[in-house]
Amino acid sequence: MKDKVSVGYIGLGIMGKSMARNILKAGFPLVVHNRSRRALEELVSEGAKEAHSPAEVAEQVDIVITNLPDSPDVELVVLGEKGIIDSARKGLVFIDHSTIKPATARKISETLGAYGVMCLDAPVSGGDIGAQRGTLAIMIGGPEEAIKIARPVLEVEGKTITHVGGAGAGQIAKAANQIMVAAQMVAMAELLVFAKKAGADPRRVVKAIQGGAAQCWTLDVKPPRLFEGNRQPGFKAYMQAKDLGIVMDTAREYGIPVPSAAVHTQLFNAMLQLGMKDLDNSGVIGVIEKLANTVLLET
Amino acid sequence: MKDKVSVGYIGLGIMGKSMARNILKAGFPLVVHNRSRRALEELVSEGAKEAHSPAEVAEQVDIVITNLPDSPDVELVVLGEKGIIDSARKGLVFIDHSTIKPATARKISETLGAYGVMCLDAPVSGGDIGAQRGTLAIMIGGPEEAIKIARPVLEVEGKTITHVGGAGAGQIAKAANQIMVAAQMVAMAELLVFAKKAGADPRRVVKAIQGGAAQCWTLDVKPPRLFEGNRQPGFKAYMQAKDLGIVMDTAREYGIPVPSAAVHTQLFNAMLQLGMKDLDNSGVIGVIEKLANTVLLET
Repeated sequence: MKDKVSVGYIGLGIMGKSMARNILKAGFPLVVHNRSRRALEELVSEGAKEAHSPAEVAEQVDIVITNLPDSPDVELVVLGEKGIIDSARKGLVFIDHSTIKPATARKISETLGAYGVMCLDAPVSGGDIGAQRGTLAIMIGGPEEAIKIARPVLEVEGKTITHVGGAGAGQIAKAANQIMVAAQMVAMAELLVFAKKAGADPRRVVKAIQGGAAQCWTLDVKPPRLFEGNRQPGFKAYMQAKDLGIVMDTAREYGIPVPSAAVHTQLFNAMLQLGMKDLDNSGVIGVIEKLANTVLLET
Repeated sequence: MKDKVSVGYIGLGIMGKSMARNILKAGFPLVVHNRSRRALEELVSEGAKEAHSPAEVAEQVDIVITNLPDSPDVELVVLGEKGIIDSARKGLVFIDHSTIKPATARKISETLGAYGVMCLDAPVSGGDIGAQRGTLAIMIGGPEEAIKIARPVLEVEGKTITHVGGAGAGQIAKAANQIMVAAQMVAMAELLVFAKKAGADPRRVVKAIQGGAAQCWTLDVKPPRLFEGNRQPGFKAYMQAKDLGIVMDTAREYGIPVPSAAVHTQLFNAMLQLGMKDLDNSGVIGVIEKLANTVLLET
């Protein structure tokens, strides 16, 4: 049997840490790098090797993965000082699980591609739970050849691995994903406040509708947390707002009117202004509560 | 074993016909009444008995069911000439599967209740497919005692039967349901046009995202029809628009701002203006196509 490919992981946030852990548990040699030390030390204690720069990660591995908050973070780690680009070489596979602008993904693919690096923009969906359980949906833009090499690793990170198209196509799919996710979060917020204020029990309303045409992951997973008074992430509101910014930027770039996503962008921006940026994206109900001058749970 | 309760069914539309047929197949004696004769004759040929007015249906059965387009239709069939009210008596169970205003449901419950009729507002969700397969979600407002009597019938019509609360609570749940359904339909429309115009294959984008946090019945069921160029109902756009009208009326009545549902109401109203009222609710993509000056499928 062939030795397992070695993997480097840069960015150990809520999602990245769980995904890196699953790679480690599956027996892949793992080198990690992270800005804050806590998650890094956790993984080192579990058997990962520490590296002190993105370049130092990339030079030691077959596949280097990033999982970072936003487009500038990925640009810095890849193209900045001691960046992945310093260890760029033919045959290296670069996978970016971050959610960034499709245009940035294409730029990075072109820049690293000039050195023979094969790049996959491979954002994910499925939340912290999906990251922990390895059941994420992974949507990929980039060359088939790189997916073939990376597949054993991708398969421990996620359950649904879909090759969407060329460079940037993974990010377009992710933006499309966020159009739907934001719509569901806001609709859930509106319908819970609607039920509450119209005099029905929101718990029973959720139970009544989650088996019909309204069925969705959002209604399956989020209401139990909300009914416990828990609005902790999960997926942070400011990340949802950032992703909606990508949707709106990309929509403008290509000339795509998205009236509903535009409203959701405004409501998540309001959430940030209301001091709720670190809450879960389901916490957008806080904005509707403000507008309706009510609260979901009586105290 | 006790004899099966006898059932009357008034309103044999897309949903009603399939639901009535499931009741008949399950062996309940069935009396039917319908404005247009075609569906009625179909069910009569399968063993149902015809009645010539709502009153004539109600006088012959233990449970009388209505499944009609809108609030005025239900008022007419229940309270109008030769209406159910003419056969109102203690112990009769009245079930309304229509989606109507919660306020109208409460008014009917009070009016028939004065004669000893037990009323359930019991709108459904799950589309034509759910109606055919008997997998609908049924959301109920009204007395527990009536649900107990009706349960054997409800269980052949649907899979999830939820008692939400008192009179009108079923309709509040259905309005909540429509807030989510409309959001998903519009989000699906926006993300498909977004993917198309940004240069990704919409089919692959759907495949990529339907296993993640965006997962929903809408993304499972509707895209295959859209990709075949099929925008036939299913659930007609003008019914979706009518249901959103109920959402907006009820939201205003109770003082509930619903900014996202308001936009979706506008988009479905636009769909009607664009001559698409008889298309499936997923056909709201036609409005986004118009706005974006593109089409999902090249011809």
